[in-house]
Amino acid sequence: MREVFQQELAEVQERLVEISRLVAVSIDKATRAFNESDVGLAEDVIADDNQIDELTVELDELAITILARQQPVARDLRIVVSALRISASLERMGDMSTHIAQLARYRFPDKVIPKSLRPTFAQMGALDVEIARMLTELLTTEDMKLAETIRNEDDKVDALHLSVFDAVLGETWKGQASDTVDATLASRYHERFADHAVSIAKKVQYLGTGDWQPDLGA
Amino acid sequence: MREVFQQELAEVQERLVEISRLVAVSIDKATRAFNESDVGLAEDVIADDNQIDELTVELDELAITILARQQPVARDLRIVVSALRISASLERMGDMSTHIAQLARYRFPDKVIPKSLRPTFAQMGALDVEIARMLTELLTTEDMKLAETIRNEDDKVDALHLSVFDAVLGETWKGQASDTVDATLASRYHERFADHAVSIAKKVQYLGTGDWQPDLGA
Repeated sequence: MREVFQQELAEVQERLVEISRLVAVSIDKATRAFNESDVGLAEDVIADDNQIDELTVELDELAITILARQQPVARDLRIVVSALRISASLERMGDMSTHIAQLARYRFPDKVIPKSLRPTFAQMGALDVEIARMLTELLTTEDMKLAETIRNEDDKVDALHLSVFDAVLGETWKGQASDTVDATLASRYHERFADHAVSIAKKVQYLGTGDWQPDLGA
Repeated sequence: MREVFQQELAEVQERLVEISRLVAVSIDKATRAFNESDVGLAEDVIADDNQIDELTVELDELAITILARQQPVARDLRIVVSALRISASLERMGDMSTHIAQLARYRFPDKVIPKSLRPTFAQMGALDVEIARMLTELLTTEDMKLAETIRNEDDKVDALHLSVFDAVLGETWKGQASDTVDATLASRYHERFADHAVSIAKKVQYLGTGDWQPDLGA
């Protein structure tokens, strides 16, 4: 019984890693679809989001089954409780990638963003991709240095997000209303993607410390 | 012991109701602050969000304590597990109100939205306020008819959200880039507010049925 239990807990953690890998692929493809107006890649991201959704639901169900049958305590309980919150954040990260891909598809064959802002979005995308990869590693190793790095990378995404507003609201902005809408939304999606990664990093810290780290990002 | 346990479960449910009431107050004030450029009300919403944040963290901690000490099963377990997800959604609903209030404060003494779009935002706000009130009632009574009504109201919010894009991207739009940004963000916040209510309604359904209803809103 005990052995089955430990196997189930290990499975929870493996599935989180698996889903975070899919999220990393998703944001990588979405970013390339967005930067390069690659509608095929955008379609992939949109189609593959179902898999992320299904896997997060299955993970939730496994976690609830473990709670009901094994009645875990201490760190074992923390693994299951944090998994229930992490899965929700991973699911939302997949949604953010999907929204970015949808913007690329919607504007195809045009590019989504006017030339002046493309370097900014390329940087935001690269940061989100890096954050997603670090997140997979954090979930695998629980190396808390990675949690710290993810927070720092999130600060960079936030700064870029603000710079998008500065650009769009500045006097030299020549974009049409559709460019303004796209830049606003795409920037928000990138920023939220990184926020969710920070929320997950906090839950991994909770695993180690037992100190429930609230998700107070906005 | 059993009696303490039942009291604790009742407390989880009462606290959810309490937080949802604060969220209803928050979106009501945020909507009025936004429609009427009332910076005092906007400040209230922003300041009061801390309380919602703190209460959701305390609720999470209570839920985890119950899991550890009481090892609930069946419906009792569902109460605790759903509370952990509902609290996260309520916390985000408070954030959405806060963001709406921040837009009002940022533009003060000007109004946030050009005249042509104000009726649309007034409607979105009224729907979100109504949804928040129904949510409090749903959490109190578990009356599943309310869950259905919340979904229908959410559909109306979604339709208004799309109509904002139609307006902003239409030929008659005379707004500046800042108006376009504000309309895009405010509309997104209203839409997400309603989405979270639907997620919560699904979790209340799960309470009754044991069927985990995924949060697949985007």
